[in-house]
Amino acid sequence: MSTTRELFNVRTPPDALSVLLDHVPARVEMEEVPTVEALDRVLAADVHSPSDLPTFRRSTMDGFAVRAADTFGATEGLPAYLDIVDEVFMGHAPTRGLGTGQCARIATGGMLPENADAVVMVEQTQEVGPTTIEALRAVAPGENVVQIGEDVRTGDPILAVGHRLRPQDLGGLVALGIASVRVARRLRVGIVSGGDELVAPSQEPGRGQIRDINSYTLGAMIRRDGHVPCLAGIFPDEYAALESAARTALTANDVVILSAGSSVSARDMTAQVVDNLGKPGVLVHGVSLKPGKPTILAVCDGKPVFGLPGNPVSCMVTYDLFVAPTLAHLSGAASLPRTSVTARLTRNIASATGREDYIQVRLERRQDGGFDAVPVFGKSNLIFTLIRADGMLKIPLDAGGLHAGAQVEVVLF
Amino acid sequence: MSTTRELFNVRTPPDALSVLLDHVPARVEMEEVPTVEALDRVLAADVHSPSDLPTFRRSTMDGFAVRAADTFGATEGLPAYLDIVDEVFMGHAPTRGLGTGQCARIATGGMLPENADAVVMVEQTQEVGPTTIEALRAVAPGENVVQIGEDVRTGDPILAVGHRLRPQDLGGLVALGIASVRVARRLRVGIVSGGDELVAPSQEPGRGQIRDINSYTLGAMIRRDGHVPCLAGIFPDEYAALESAARTALTANDVVILSAGSSVSARDMTAQVVDNLGKPGVLVHGVSLKPGKPTILAVCDGKPVFGLPGNPVSCMVTYDLFVAPTLAHLSGAASLPRTSVTARLTRNIASATGREDYIQVRLERRQDGGFDAVPVFGKSNLIFTLIRADGMLKIPLDAGGLHAGAQVEVVLF
Repeated sequence: MSTTRELFNVRTPPDALSVLLDHVPARVEMEEVPTVEALDRVLAADVHSPSDLPTFRRSTMDGFAVRAADTFGATEGLPAYLDIVDEVFMGHAPTRGLGTGQCARIATGGMLPENADAVVMVEQTQEVGPTTIEALRAVAPGENVVQIGEDVRTGDPILAVGHRLRPQDLGGLVALGIASVRVARRLRVGIVSGGDELVAPSQEPGRGQIRDINSYTLGAMIRRDGHVPCLAGIFPDEYAALESAARTALTANDVVILSAGSSVSARDMTAQVVDNLGKPGVLVHGVSLKPGKPTILAVCDGKPVFGLPGNPVSCMVTYDLFVAPTLAHLSGAASLPRTSVTARLTRNIASATGREDYIQVRLERRQDGGFDAVPVFGKSNLIFTLIRADGMLKIPLDAGGLHAGAQVEVVLF
Repeated sequence: MSTTRELFNVRTPPDALSVLLDHVPARVEMEEVPTVEALDRVLAADVHSPSDLPTFRRSTMDGFAVRAADTFGATEGLPAYLDIVDEVFMGHAPTRGLGTGQCARIATGGMLPENADAVVMVEQTQEVGPTTIEALRAVAPGENVVQIGEDVRTGDPILAVGHRLRPQDLGGLVALGIASVRVARRLRVGIVSGGDELVAPSQEPGRGQIRDINSYTLGAMIRRDGHVPCLAGIFPDEYAALESAARTALTANDVVILSAGSSVSARDMTAQVVDNLGKPGVLVHGVSLKPGKPTILAVCDGKPVFGLPGNPVSCMVTYDLFVAPTLAHLSGAASLPRTSVTARLTRNIASATGREDYIQVRLERRQDGGFDAVPVFGKSNLIFTLIRADGMLKIPLDAGGLHAGAQVEVVLF
């Protein structure tokens, strides 16, 4: 890969991602995990209900289970008299069904007796003897009752493949006795950091040296997305060392990220290393994107390999644009775990057409409850630009910039 | 606590929460954890920068480090001639400073030599001999250079107490060599499930029985919020059993949730149990809220205790409104890890004034990029109402309802 080829082969970000995903196998590797441990995992198969829920008719009120017809026409002035023939205990079946003119004491959640089809709230009754009540109001059939299968029915589709499991989803699965679920396996993502200037965070950098940041930022983003980062360490800007590290990482992981230096020579070396790792090799070298232009997207022997720019802002932007959707694709996930808010831009931002720009912004809550998006400017090799910001907004390819007052969508980080 | 007192002592949700938090100690318990393991943890102390970043002047381009004054007036027609006296290697200090008319080869990220104050991009130079270049353009002092401390300066406040650590925050801390951070200790939250009708998820429910859902939904919400759920198990609707379980949970945990039955007698028993656990006991019993009216908020011997309604929708709503902010308060967290989107309501919803209503909604993306909020109606004891929804919206206390077309804020779950 030469610098010349990089300059002439620049793709738009959506185009670049789609070229990559076209070469990534669609097969999702799955595993079975206990439902109660499956929070935030991505379903690898549709789930259908194995049974009705509830399995019996339940009262939604404290009161008396009745045959609704026995209450028709009842008013405070002319109540319906009913005989109490049973008390339904929670967690137990009623001991008998109801005959005409009969009722059973029942609490919220209790099981309706046979022949009962409604519940009169206790507040709408009056006990006039040890075994007799007045119903002061008529109830319709089904009133204050949850029917069998009203929550969900046997065979109903309840959760779809690709869905990320939320707390209530675990609740619903547990309610149906579904003890385990098939989910996409967590992906192992190898991170190889390249750069003669890098030292480990625990080391005191010498003159001209800096600590490795990207391994840790990337690692945290990968964990947030539900996968497993595997830090390979720091390697010098030497072809043999970098290639050997990348090859080892490719064998041990599902996906590999090379976080390389920002100089042209370091980038070219990264491209060569990636291109030699496996077939088809480098698919995209250079994206019409700022920051993040020198991004490398590759597939080597069926595994996605990324060469991300070395500066921290570019690294985060390109992770979001290319790595995160690829991990979601490999997991069959229907959506990314990213959220965004709509905000109002506070100042003009210039941009070149034919390029997507990503701008870091701070969000400020306005009096009217909406958000202002305040750009946080800074060179893209300054990590604190990201720290002072709440999210990023995109200036689209075909826009020459954005005007103050524009409604923008800010992806939070 | 009698039913009567419940009816007459109903508070608004914000009022109820503030009564509770007024009784909860503000002291945040902290612990020191390695920075690289601190993702999503809440800072327990402000962090200031121990050093400048960068610690040396760095080039942002591949090119030549120069004394800017030597290039003044340079053009393609009349270039400035400079002698190459050094090559700066990545990760090393330059071997010498620059004299007048001298320059040094440098790559992106390289350390500027002494007396150099700018970098000419390689594209704006021409090599005219083994040790001579033409600079085809003038550069200003500081051009293409990151200054010492430009990212952050010694002593700068960089992250504030209460901040939840994001991937880039870990990167910034690591860049400064901050190997560990003081964060709020994860809270242990005991969950006691009460109800004669409940069985464990692994059991096949008998007639009149249902599986315990709330322990698992609550547990997952607590984990999402960064804390540790401790499931005590299922206890019958008997005072002694419930009290003993609650007492054990209070000793072992920082916070206790009792998820009780929905009948009046079960709720009254829960209130009595909580009130006897410790001083001051029950502070709020009954909130002007639907669903979730019979919520119990208490502080017992300095620890928050919650009696949440037994039905799954009420349980989730009241966790969000009362438990989550209390956990954030105890952690000193500046914000809740909740996100919301603005959406357009698709139909009228009625409500009673003087009560906050929470409505489950499904979000649908419109052609124009915005979201429609489609209400998902269902009795509040139906768990699948929550599963079919993407979030909840609030109908404020003083509103009689909401009109179709209203802009609403949907809190995602």
